[in-house]
Amino acid sequence: MIKNSLKRIFLYRACLKRLKTMGVEKVFSYTLANETGVTSEQVRKDFSEFNIKGNKRGGYDINDLLDRMEKIFHQNKDNNIVLIGMGNLGLALSKYNKFVQRNMNIVATFDIDPFKQKMRSDLPVYPMSRLKEIINRFRVRVAIIAVPEISAQEVCDELVRNGIKGIVNFAPVLLKVPQEVIINNVNLCDELESVIYYVHQLISGEGIKNIELLYRDLKY
Amino acid sequence: MIKNSLKRIFLYRACLKRLKTMGVEKVFSYTLANETGVTSEQVRKDFSEFNIKGNKRGGYDINDLLDRMEKIFHQNKDNNIVLIGMGNLGLALSKYNKFVQRNMNIVATFDIDPFKQKMRSDLPVYPMSRLKEIINRFRVRVAIIAVPEISAQEVCDELVRNGIKGIVNFAPVLLKVPQEVIINNVNLCDELESVIYYVHQLISGEGIKNIELLYRDLKY
Repeated sequence: MIKNSLKRIFLYRACLKRLKTMGVEKVFSYTLANETGVTSEQVRKDFSEFNIKGNKRGGYDINDLLDRMEKIFHQNKDNNIVLIGMGNLGLALSKYNKFVQRNMNIVATFDIDPFKQKMRSDLPVYPMSRLKEIINRFRVRVAIIAVPEISAQEVCDELVRNGIKGIVNFAPVLLKVPQEVIINNVNLCDELESVIYYVHQLISGEGIKNIELLYRDLKY
Repeated sequence: MIKNSLKRIFLYRACLKRLKTMGVEKVFSYTLANETGVTSEQVRKDFSEFNIKGNKRGGYDINDLLDRMEKIFHQNKDNNIVLIGMGNLGLALSKYNKFVQRNMNIVATFDIDPFKQKMRSDLPVYPMSRLKEIINRFRVRVAIIAVPEISAQEVCDELVRNGIKGIVNFAPVLLKVPQEVIINNVNLCDELESVIYYVHQLISGEGIKNIELLYRDLKY
């Protein structure tokens, strides 16, 4: 559900951060293109789509580019998030400190058995019956789903009914939302399975052609 | 690093599973196209690329399609995997039972402080000094990285030196590997941040055009 151009912007950003730690100060679009496997034209087109400007002549200043991306994506606003499902994965996500570093604050978590999970968590764990109240109190618009797949769609529907506009779903099932809600289905099994598939291709030798294609045809 | 056509195949598969639970037995390529936001032509093209065949006239039999995908991607083989980094996220991944259900078995985990983590884990936790031995003993070709970003590239290099051919990286940093190694950088912050970005666009109203584009231009 996330546009490829936005995914590429995040890829460029990751690349810029790596170059910065290596002491690089300026980049050209072809540097970013080479590093990420796209064309220079694509880099410039993506920058233009997201209104990221820079002096092309002498190359882009890396710090300047990163600042601009920061403004576009973070807008220096805090984002309050609720997390549903405090199993192992939910618990790990609730403790993931990188979210906070990027102004994404999980303000509350929910579980069908809040008392059981409270001991392990640093954040409040509420029963689902208090969802509406918490969403309203913290003006939450974004939620993370980490419940078992069997209850994921039901939880998703309840979130949407209570005004949630964007969802990252970690349950391994494709969730359906109304047109005006953003859903990002992240399937951890698929991420691992993709790699295994290509490794099998690589080892068997049969798929070398396909693998070469992978590197050339990298649209991501 | 994962081709979009493979991502779409996984999307079709998720969609087929959902239709199956709803009691549907047959689908046409346009059903899958509608459900996933691509064209029918794209569905048929992707099926052809991955050699997924079916009787087009009366529609594809869902069970048959799922069986074929199972054979192509799992090949009924067990896959031994090592996991590096037993922090909160690593621990959750090590306990994620969906991997096992798809024949992806984490046979060993590693941490710089194995003794500390052993208490929480159901799997053996080894020091990095035993990496080579374990990789060889279990013929491991695929690894999961869940270490802090500061040590991720170093761990990645060590895995590659010891024969690992495919890596799923959860550290929020872009890892570099040689051409013959498959890397899939999964950035949890980016997944959440993408959704937040679109929600801001949606709420501000400024970006409605962009959002509409998102639904029409869904290449994923």
